[in-house]
Amino acid sequence: MAKGRKVRHNTKIGLAPGSLFFTGDRKMDKPEIELIIFNETEFQEQRYDSISEALEVVHNSDKICWLNIDGLHETSIIEHLVIEEKVHKLTGEDILSIGQRPKLDEYDHYIHLVANMFMVSEDDIESEQISILIFDKLLISFQEKSGDVFEHVRKRLRESSGQIRKREADYLGYALIDSIVDQYFVILEHYGSQIEDLEEELLDKPTESILGKLHAVRRKALHMRRAVYPMREVVNQFEKSDSSLVDQETKLFVRDLYDHTIQVIETVEVFRDSVSGLLDLYMNTVSNRMNNVMKVLTIVSTIFIPLTFIAGIYGMNFTNMPELEYKYGYLIVMLLMLVISIGMIIFFKKKKWL
Amino acid sequence: MAKGRKVRHNTKIGLAPGSLFFTGDRKMDKPEIELIIFNETEFQEQRYDSISEALEVVHNSDKICWLNIDGLHETSIIEHLVIEEKVHKLTGEDILSIGQRPKLDEYDHYIHLVANMFMVSEDDIESEQISILIFDKLLISFQEKSGDVFEHVRKRLRESSGQIRKREADYLGYALIDSIVDQYFVILEHYGSQIEDLEEELLDKPTESILGKLHAVRRKALHMRRAVYPMREVVNQFEKSDSSLVDQETKLFVRDLYDHTIQVIETVEVFRDSVSGLLDLYMNTVSNRMNNVMKVLTIVSTIFIPLTFIAGIYGMNFTNMPELEYKYGYLIVMLLMLVISIGMIIFFKKKKWL
Amino acid sequence: MAKGRKVRHNTKIGLAPGSLFFTGDRKMDKPEIELIIFNETEFQEQRYDSISEALEVVHNSDKICWLNIDGLHETSIIEHLVIEEKVHKLTGEDILSIGQRPKLDEYDHYIHLVANMFMVSEDDIESEQISILIFDKLLISFQEKSGDVFEHVRKRLRESSGQIRKREADYLGYALIDSIVDQYFVILEHYGSQIEDLEEELLDKPTESILGKLHAVRRKALHMRRAVYPMREVVNQFEKSDSSLVDQETKLFVRDLYDHTIQVIETVEVFRDSVSGLLDLYMNTVSNRMNNVMKVLTIVSTIFIPLTFIAGIYGMNFTNMPELEYKYGYLIVMLLMLVISIGMIIFFKKKKWL
Amino acid sequence: MAKGRKVRHNTKIGLAPGSLFFTGDRKMDKPEIELIIFNETEFQEQRYDSISEALEVVHNSDKICWLNIDGLHETSIIEHLVIEEKVHKLTGEDILSIGQRPKLDEYDHYIHLVANMFMVSEDDIESEQISILIFDKLLISFQEKSGDVFEHVRKRLRESSGQIRKREADYLGYALIDSIVDQYFVILEHYGSQIEDLEEELLDKPTESILGKLHAVRRKALHMRRAVYPMREVVNQFEKSDSSLVDQETKLFVRDLYDHTIQVIETVEVFRDSVSGLLDLYMNTVSNRMNNVMKVLTIVSTIFIPLTFIAGIYGMNFTNMPELEYKYGYLIVMLLMLVISIGMIIFFKKKKWL
Amino acid sequence: MAKGRKVRHNTKIGLAPGSLFFTGDRKMDKPEIELIIFNETEFQEQRYDSISEALEVVHNSDKICWLNIDGLHETSIIEHLVIEEKVHKLTGEDILSIGQRPKLDEYDHYIHLVANMFMVSEDDIESEQISILIFDKLLISFQEKSGDVFEHVRKRLRESSGQIRKREADYLGYALIDSIVDQYFVILEHYGSQIEDLEEELLDKPTESILGKLHAVRRKALHMRRAVYPMREVVNQFEKSDSSLVDQETKLFVRDLYDHTIQVIETVEVFRDSVSGLLDLYMNTVSNRMNNVMKVLTIVSTIFIPLTFIAGIYGMNFTNMPELEYKYGYLIVMLLMLVISIGMIIFFKKKKWL
Repeated sequence: MAKGRKVRHNTKIGLAPGSLFFTGDRKMDKPEIELIIFNETEFQEQRYDSISEALEVVHNSDKICWLNIDGLHETSIIEHLVIEEKVHKLTGEDILSIGQRPKLDEYDHYIHLVANMFMVSEDDIESEQISILIFDKLLISFQEKSGDVFEHVRKRLRESSGQIRKREADYLGYALIDSIVDQYFVILEHYGSQIEDLEEELLDKPTESILGKLHAVRRKALHMRRAVYPMREVVNQFEKSDSSLVDQETKLFVRDLYDHTIQVIETVEVFRDSVSGLLDLYMNTVSNRMNNVMKVLTIVSTIFIPLTFIAGIYGMNFTNMPELEYKYGYLIVMLLMLVISIGMIIFFKKKKWL
Repeated sequence: MAKGRKVRHNTKIGLAPGSLFFTGDRKMDKPEIELIIFNETEFQEQRYDSISEALEVVHNSDKICWLNIDGLHETSIIEHLVIEEKVHKLTGEDILSIGQRPKLDEYDHYIHLVANMFMVSEDDIESEQISILIFDKLLISFQEKSGDVFEHVRKRLRESSGQIRKREADYLGYALIDSIVDQYFVILEHYGSQIEDLEEELLDKPTESILGKLHAVRRKALHMRRAVYPMREVVNQFEKSDSSLVDQETKLFVRDLYDHTIQVIETVEVFRDSVSGLLDLYMNTVSNRMNNVMKVLTIVSTIFIPLTFIAGIYGMNFTNMPELEYKYGYLIVMLLMLVISIGMIIFFKKKKWL
Repeated sequence: MAKGRKVRHNTKIGLAPGSLFFTGDRKMDKPEIELIIFNETEFQEQRYDSISEALEVVHNSDKICWLNIDGLHETSIIEHLVIEEKVHKLTGEDILSIGQRPKLDEYDHYIHLVANMFMVSEDDIESEQISILIFDKLLISFQEKSGDVFEHVRKRLRESSGQIRKREADYLGYALIDSIVDQYFVILEHYGSQIEDLEEELLDKPTESILGKLHAVRRKALHMRRAVYPMREVVNQFEKSDSSLVDQETKLFVRDLYDHTIQVIETVEVFRDSVSGLLDLYMNTVSNRMNNVMKVLTIVSTIFIPLTFIAGIYGMNFTNMPELEYKYGYLIVMLLMLVISIGMIIFFKKKKWL
Repeated sequence: MAKGRKVRHNTKIGLAPGSLFFTGDRKMDKPEIELIIFNETEFQEQRYDSISEALEVVHNSDKICWLNIDGLHETSIIEHLVIEEKVHKLTGEDILSIGQRPKLDEYDHYIHLVANMFMVSEDDIESEQISILIFDKLLISFQEKSGDVFEHVRKRLRESSGQIRKREADYLGYALIDSIVDQYFVILEHYGSQIEDLEEELLDKPTESILGKLHAVRRKALHMRRAVYPMREVVNQFEKSDSSLVDQETKLFVRDLYDHTIQVIETVEVFRDSVSGLLDLYMNTVSNRMNNVMKVLTIVSTIFIPLTFIAGIYGMNFTNMPELEYKYGYLIVMLLMLVISIGMIIFFKKKKWL
Repeated sequence: MAKGRKVRHNTKIGLAPGSLFFTGDRKMDKPEIELIIFNETEFQEQRYDSISEALEVVHNSDKICWLNIDGLHETSIIEHLVIEEKVHKLTGEDILSIGQRPKLDEYDHYIHLVANMFMVSEDDIESEQISILIFDKLLISFQEKSGDVFEHVRKRLRESSGQIRKREADYLGYALIDSIVDQYFVILEHYGSQIEDLEEELLDKPTESILGKLHAVRRKALHMRRAVYPMREVVNQFEKSDSSLVDQETKLFVRDLYDHTIQVIETVEVFRDSVSGLLDLYMNTVSNRMNNVMKVLTIVSTIFIPLTFIAGIYGMNFTNMPELEYKYGYLIVMLLMLVISIGMIIFFKKKKWL
């Protein structure tokens, strides 16, 4: 769980609701504004320096426009949208507030979607908040930093594969959410193989370090769960939406996406169950090993302590100890010890400790 | 849980939704296409090499047709269906995507059902994804590989037992799902007797290996649970369906099937409860045994350590130790030791450790 | 849990749905067919050898008829009913399938109820499946074997006590279900006193055998729970039924019965809670006892091991050990040992181990 | 949990539903019949010997009447009501059946409420079943024995404080239930301070007896919970009732009562959580102490056992042991032992066991 | 959990419902009455000594009024409101009853909101009950004592930042609840960092004191949870309210607030999960350490006890012990001991205990 992320909210306390204030960490120098314009026959990809330039191009076009903005620290961009595109102030605030819960808000002329995007980077999982605004012929997406999971969508747009170029902004929105959810499966596979490794290690040669590892996976699954659970509601609202912005045919695809979301959630639940199963197994293994340690101690002690006592008796220096003078005294004592040892071993055999 | 199965999804990332791409393992050489054509009086069973041939026969027949396809790796078959039978692309994608959650999707002219079929093979349980498309007079079923649980249905068709030959494709669909759910009971009996064996072993002579076995059964029950839970929803949707494809009389049978599904789920839950009850019992047994081991150690140590100490004292070599010279010194010390031992034993008896 | 009962289903695999096949154990020689005919003024009780004879009497009577059939292995009886009384084939199948979940199915001209009857026999609890068909003026009940909990109902019919003779078949159906649910309270009292005994034993003098007993009660409560949970739904459906077969006044009584069913369920839940509370208590008691055992071991060892070491030192045979020659050497060492012992005891007192 | 109370039901088995049979223990000699008649200006309080006398007074009055009956063993009173006041037989049966679940049943001309009243007596909590019948201008309350929590209501009636004298029987009914729920808070405070005491004891100086006490509180909370949960439903039904007997203004007060009921339930849940938290804490404390006991044992044993072994070596009686003759042999061995001890202590310090 | 707070209710027992009686602790000398009057252009802030003076000003104004009252022990203020502003008696009672569950009650001409305000003070969390009455152009807020979390709202009013001065009393009510919920995030961050510290301590160097700390955090999270759960319902009712007092535009903001409330609840749940995860981790760590302690004890004992026994044998004083006379007797015995030690070490290495 990214520290501080979940309770970032309070840096904003005292501001009026709807205030445009970025609560995240500044992760890049300058926001990157990228505009893709396409219809069934044409495709155009361009970077812009200012939001007003880009919006002008959008307004002069009758094609589908996808405006992607990486970097949220320049709040002037959002302000621009609030004024130019009549985006509600609360939408603006939500886009800038990092640590939002995934949600879908419908407004008169646009739909506002918030989701968490997960990416595998080196050996860790990074998460990033994505906001998507679906207008009639325009889709605007906001990311905290550059680098995303939308490359496949861009490729399909460029190559006009599938029906993406033939459809409106709602289908593009679906395609983006779909690629975010698809990415969840990659993350799950990552965790799944971690859990399998831990299970193998646990059954094979359990060490103490496994406890910390299991704890870490448990935390990650918890974090993941928190991000994917609300997605179900988001996708469901998207499917059930009666906004004229969402096409009937698109909804068929969203229904399919909904099934995937449920599958993600179930897999996360299975992971939780698996990890707690492994923790139980670990605890039981520890108990078993303790039991074995104790048995060895008990067997050795129980055999030798009485014998040592007998030896101790005949080590006493009393002047009047007739046994000491017997010719076979030593031999008899040794035999007695042997008999005791064998008796003990039989006793342990019967108790199934040996 | 079949490894890799649950997170197979990602091999498809980057493909447009509706892309026809097989995500499973190639399990057989060539898909087998089998066509059964029947009505109340006639019955015909035939294998075909190509899907187009089979479909031509279907189109020229006014009887009920059951087209069963084993093997999904040749995506051309699905492509054919998408074009010829107007199957939606998403349906095609779902048929080819192994690791789907059981579900029921209704389209205008067909119903699409996904289920998991379990089969007992040698000493393990194998699972396979089954897709069923119910059209007006045609039912198409897809399996990953040859070998299935539908033999009883075929037999009833051949022998015209029951009403199966008098009914439409919806009843055939019901019969197939019914035989899948019936098979769950076989699997459950398999697990049930495993659990009973484990319980007997646990109460009789608990060994360490039982822990691993309980863990394994727990995992299998978890896996089973994941497959059967969504089936309830599927069967319920089937019963509640307002599609004209599903007959009122068939729904009575589906209601009955729904009861069976609930029964499967409840049995799985009872297994989960039983296994965790056994795990608790095991842990308690381990604790009890540890307790017994500790008691033996404590009793032996507590009796002999003080005695050994006394023997140690009279083993010291001080020149001035008057007791050593006493005539009855040795006897008195031995009696003292006896008194201490008896005192200890009475103490343990009172504590109910003996 | 009766072994094999829960997963009996599979012996029927391969049969067409609606096939009349008895899945239970043959528990008696010949089915017993008993017919009670009554109205407000008349009462008649008769045994018949064949179902057709009995049905003929029923058809010729304008009074309320209760046909009770003990023994299900002769499927011809059910076949007869399917044909003569237009009972649905699925109803017939359900009556013969032992291990059904309690349920209520409404058909056009009858209501079909399935319930589990529990009976205390010698020192165990036996359960049996009861099917009840409520027609307009006829009630048919099916039992696996003779011997039931309906004797009270018969007595009230004979003696015309209460309003039972003034009412229709629906009220008779209610009375039968009511006597089944009343019997649950007897079983619960049986379990309740078992749990109280176990609690007393646990608080008084916990032995290892209690673990097995608690486990057994836990299993039985689980089994009971499985039988009574669906009963709530059954009774609720009965009360909410809009079938013309169920009278408004009867529904008042069924509402009361519903309250009893809830009470049964809550009592079962309390038992579950109690048993797991007792298991926790047992585990804690075991831990406490282990702690005490360990304390005794530690105290004895910690006091005597150092003393034995000191004695060991002066038991060494070095020629040059000046202390050994001192006049008060022995006395000093003994005093030293005393001081160490007292120091240890004070240490343990301070740690509250003594 | 009062023994036998929960499963008292069965003493009634075999009786027709609606039979008037008292299932409780006879707790007093003669039922006490008390009648309070009031309106805004007048107030009258009187005891009667027979129910018929009291009912005659009620029928001749046009004021609000509250008839309170302590003692249920004379079933003739209920029979009288069934005939005179047209109370349904099932209501009569419920009033007499001790161990009922709290519930509210609406009939045409009256509302029937069942609740559990708790009272603190000496050092225990007693519970008693209260039945309340709300007619148009008459309220009848039934108690198992004399002594109740309604004294405050009587006082308010006598002193005409609040609006109670200005309102109808429905408000009086609300006032009675309100005083029962108010009493729950007293009981909860009682338990709450017990739990706080246990927590203090546990953190301060945990003894073994605390386990039994925690178990007892846990049981009591479970019992309490069982009584208050259905009250929520009862009060909710009271508020939502569309009976003409319940005034709109009264419902505002019942809504407030509903909030109190929820608060009671939440407090009970917090107690459950607290108790199980304390049980966990206790178990962990026990583990910790066991750990400490083991550490002391291990440290003492690990230091002295090797030293004793060395002393044992030089206590051997071999004739040819050159070290024994060395001048500084004894000194060297003593130094060696010192070095070993210090080494061990450093080892334990490093392991943070000291 | 503030002691006594949860069960304060009973000090009021015996009072008529709607009685105005303060159940909290008197926390300040004299209630402070503060009145803020504003509209889009004007702003005025004034303190009053008596409620009647303040209400006169309110009645003579056509602007929005916010009347804030700190200190509830003078019940005459509430009495005044009940008479002058037609506030329902039950509302008055709720304002004065400390320990209320958060709730929203709608009356004809006002909305009554109860919430818990949390404040960080020195090193503890204090909570205080806030009641808010939203009239058409008047908002009255009640606090137990001076000092609140509304300073930001006052500042925005003074500086006319955001739209707060342009809106009605409903928006002001929203703003107050919003600042209370915002404060929850501060508290959560406080707890969150405590949990992170505990986790670090636990993974780094677990001490016994951590158990008490975890228990304390667990209790606080439980307390917090109890306060925030009902807030969800309150905010939801506020959003769904069909009262004419709540503006459509305000509801958009309340919807946003609802998302925040859900986020608070989810964070609290994550904390609960984290704390119980840490408790598990702690228990496992304790088990592991116990295991290690036992291993050291067992290894040392198992090696040295047999050796000491051998030494004991040759310390016996039998006259006839031929080995003692052998020239290499001593050497052989020493070698034998060495072999045994090495054997033991190899055995432990193989068992992976070393």
